[in-house]
Amino acid sequence: MEFTAQQIAELLNGKVEGNPNAVVSTFSKIEEGKPGSLCFLANPKYTNYIYETQASVVLVNEDFEAQKPIKATLIRVEDAYRAIAILLDIYNKMTDKPKGIEKQSFVHKSAVLGKNIYVGAFAYIGKDVKIGNNVQIYPQVYIGNNVTIGDNCIIYPGVKIYYNTKIGNNCIIHSGTVIGADGFGFAPNDGEAFLKIAQIGNVVIEDNVELGALVTVDRATMGSTIIREGVKLDNHNHVAHNVEIGKNTVIAAQTGIAGTSKIGQNCMFGGQVGIGPHITIANGTKLSSKSGLSNNVLKEDSLLMGAPAFDIRAYHRAYIHFKNLDDIVKRIDSIENKLNEK
Amino acid sequence: MEFTAQQIAELLNGKVEGNPNAVVSTFSKIEEGKPGSLCFLANPKYTNYIYETQASVVLVNEDFEAQKPIKATLIRVEDAYRAIAILLDIYNKMTDKPKGIEKQSFVHKSAVLGKNIYVGAFAYIGKDVKIGNNVQIYPQVYIGNNVTIGDNCIIYPGVKIYYNTKIGNNCIIHSGTVIGADGFGFAPNDGEAFLKIAQIGNVVIEDNVELGALVTVDRATMGSTIIREGVKLDNHNHVAHNVEIGKNTVIAAQTGIAGTSKIGQNCMFGGQVGIGPHITIANGTKLSSKSGLSNNVLKEDSLLMGAPAFDIRAYHRAYIHFKNLDDIVKRIDSIENKLNEK
Amino acid sequence: MEFTAQQIAELLNGKVEGNPNAVVSTFSKIEEGKPGSLCFLANPKYTNYIYETQASVVLVNEDFEAQKPIKATLIRVEDAYRAIAILLDIYNKMTDKPKGIEKQSFVHKSAVLGKNIYVGAFAYIGKDVKIGNNVQIYPQVYIGNNVTIGDNCIIYPGVKIYYNTKIGNNCIIHSGTVIGADGFGFAPNDGEAFLKIAQIGNVVIEDNVELGALVTVDRATMGSTIIREGVKLDNHNHVAHNVEIGKNTVIAAQTGIAGTSKIGQNCMFGGQVGIGPHITIANGTKLSSKSGLSNNVLKEDSLLMGAPAFDIRAYHRAYIHFKNLDDIVKRIDSIENKLNEK
Repeated sequence: MEFTAQQIAELLNGKVEGNPNAVVSTFSKIEEGKPGSLCFLANPKYTNYIYETQASVVLVNEDFEAQKPIKATLIRVEDAYRAIAILLDIYNKMTDKPKGIEKQSFVHKSAVLGKNIYVGAFAYIGKDVKIGNNVQIYPQVYIGNNVTIGDNCIIYPGVKIYYNTKIGNNCIIHSGTVIGADGFGFAPNDGEAFLKIAQIGNVVIEDNVELGALVTVDRATMGSTIIREGVKLDNHNHVAHNVEIGKNTVIAAQTGIAGTSKIGQNCMFGGQVGIGPHITIANGTKLSSKSGLSNNVLKEDSLLMGAPAFDIRAYHRAYIHFKNLDDIVKRIDSIENKLNEK
Repeated sequence: MEFTAQQIAELLNGKVEGNPNAVVSTFSKIEEGKPGSLCFLANPKYTNYIYETQASVVLVNEDFEAQKPIKATLIRVEDAYRAIAILLDIYNKMTDKPKGIEKQSFVHKSAVLGKNIYVGAFAYIGKDVKIGNNVQIYPQVYIGNNVTIGDNCIIYPGVKIYYNTKIGNNCIIHSGTVIGADGFGFAPNDGEAFLKIAQIGNVVIEDNVELGALVTVDRATMGSTIIREGVKLDNHNHVAHNVEIGKNTVIAAQTGIAGTSKIGQNCMFGGQVGIGPHITIANGTKLSSKSGLSNNVLKEDSLLMGAPAFDIRAYHRAYIHFKNLDDIVKRIDSIENKLNEK
Repeated sequence: MEFTAQQIAELLNGKVEGNPNAVVSTFSKIEEGKPGSLCFLANPKYTNYIYETQASVVLVNEDFEAQKPIKATLIRVEDAYRAIAILLDIYNKMTDKPKGIEKQSFVHKSAVLGKNIYVGAFAYIGKDVKIGNNVQIYPQVYIGNNVTIGDNCIIYPGVKIYYNTKIGNNCIIHSGTVIGADGFGFAPNDGEAFLKIAQIGNVVIEDNVELGALVTVDRATMGSTIIREGVKLDNHNHVAHNVEIGKNTVIAAQTGIAGTSKIGQNCMFGGQVGIGPHITIANGTKLSSKSGLSNNVLKEDSLLMGAPAFDIRAYHRAYIHFKNLDDIVKRIDSIENKLNEK
């Protein structure tokens, strides 16, 4: 399908600068722009490409100021990143979604499925499962007994959901993710093999949550491990038993959260972060990649780095000195020499 | 089912303090205790909750001393954490376990299955596989040719076990875990693409081992990668080719062990630890989360932190100074100024 | 099958030292060598074992100099590690490979499969998929619509490949790996839930690539995430949207690469490395385990360590001082005392 710059501008409430009849039929990255494609400029790192791009139309922020002539037609919008998100979503929704229940699936007779549903081959839906409307369950998914899933969810191939898990509406769960495996709980046993602590709780995932591929969310020992509304977890995240992650918190890949910790709302964690057990993290906390935390964060909107993490500016200052420690020690040597000479 | 405080105390060899006829039918966490539920207090961090909990019965350690009146009935036991483990296990065993061989599974005609077994739909059991009694193989599990599995094991949905793997008795393996994939071995090849080294060894897992979700244990190049009796690995662990992990060692999530390293018995590693290749770690070694090791640990019961790791107390002292490096350098500046003034 | 030392030496263009008629039928590690087995010595750490090994034949480097008498027959070759790789490969190729299309699989009628192919039970092959010759698709693999796979690939049990992915020839992909899941892209939304950015690009994997178990390679937002020829990724690696990894780069386990970063050719990264978003890394860069990078590496063949990473020798020097910081601060204290006394 083709759209003109003018049509797109109207859709996005934007302003055309250049040829309003420029036609696009696909998307491209600004550094790879081809005629007939639309791209966007949001990250200033990529500004140079706008003067050379072959793309026909570029979305830019309202306040973008060109330093040289630009061949492409511009559409100025309030927020170019958000605008491209809206367009990509429209484009994505135009593709056909799978429907129906493929014959080689297993659906327990007690399971209740909503309308307009897809169940792929080799998917397994257990006893007393309840699934809402417009849900896509891809091949090789496992849904254990007594799980409930809300409306409009997408469960990608091979996801495994253990018994009693509750999932809200509009959730997306990517391939290989495991929800509800046993928490890691063992009691010492007089020097003998550790005693397994049976994990009888469950996992609760609220609305609008997206879990990346190969994420684990363990079931609670007792009670529930809870992922609140709007949380987004990247690939390879680990969420231990009885953890709670607050609304709209976003966590990058390969981060792990140990048992019973409570993460606030609107937090942002980088990749490979580690959160210790039994700690509480205030709303709006930002952790730099590879940070570690073993104590509570009480102050909201803290920006931390390091393992154990502390204020990010202080970390950067300390790290500069760390890199110079060899010179610093030489200064001390020389001071001592001077003092000894006297 | 309902139990009185008195009945539970007898089961645990404990002492009731309060109403011996208090009735419970479920479990709760102390901070979420509801009437009719039993909870426990083992971690002192949670002591405050005992004075407010609505739970009917609380398990506490023998030596617990109340600072205020407590509404709940107490049961004093030698070790509250161990006692709750026993109760949860009893509770867990009362739930029905799946049985029988579901029709849509694949079991090779040469495979030998024990008594009282469960094989879920879409599970694949290859040639010459031998499986013991009372084993649960959940849907979508893959068991390659010539694998043997002992008695009383639980293999959760989607586990993949490559050919020739040997698994002992009473093992639990959580969803998505991969056992026996090729070790990461490549030989340089005159600047051309690396030459793959075929991995012809296998994996041996002894009795009473539990592997979390999405763990990898690679097959040996030659010989065996070995997980000894009683080892417990949390989610997302990586165990490379030819590693050996000693008896009753416990490792938290997202830890990786490189090829051919030997971990002792009764070790405890935190999460996100990294162990280099070809090293030996003494029995009882404890590594703090995020530690890295590239040299042998010879002394038993060492307690280490950092990357590369060293004595944990020394690490904490050094880290305090690291955080203060900016001030330390200012002190040096000021000393130099003083010296120059003279 | 049995081979004499002489036969093996001819195969490898090596020189026998000892009994040319010594017979071997299997492989062993030098420290576990048994009569009738062949082992190799490449890593000097293992030299001591050669004087005691019970193996019948040992491959050694041409320039190996024995310090004591050796019982085993030696075969001297240019590169013992490469020679064993060749022998193991020959041994491995003698085992039977699975063939044919198992009945309980799902192959879409529009899919085009090459000759001499294996499709295991419960594997799912979607619409318009194209698969080359001599490909092994193990049980429970998912191949989404419009995926293409070249010749001689092995796709192990449970791999999930999303729509539109392109895979070249001679690739090996281990169990549980997920290719083509959505990149982690969300736009802020006036303090409301983040807006998902539809990921409409794909993943391209060139020839001779090996991906370990439980790896993720995310699809591009627009364009392609690209894994170039000869790349080898170990278990639990994470490759984000729009990343490009250059030819013959090798990356150890649990490493993560954030969105849009470009890794050069012939790089070697240790385990648990983290690469930030939007950065460029020069050819031949070596990163020590647990390193972090958030800035470009411009100089080829850099050898870096730390988070953020810098020159590895400088890192080691600084880290030695870090371990001594307590003593360093005591020296400063004592200097200040001396100065104050004066």
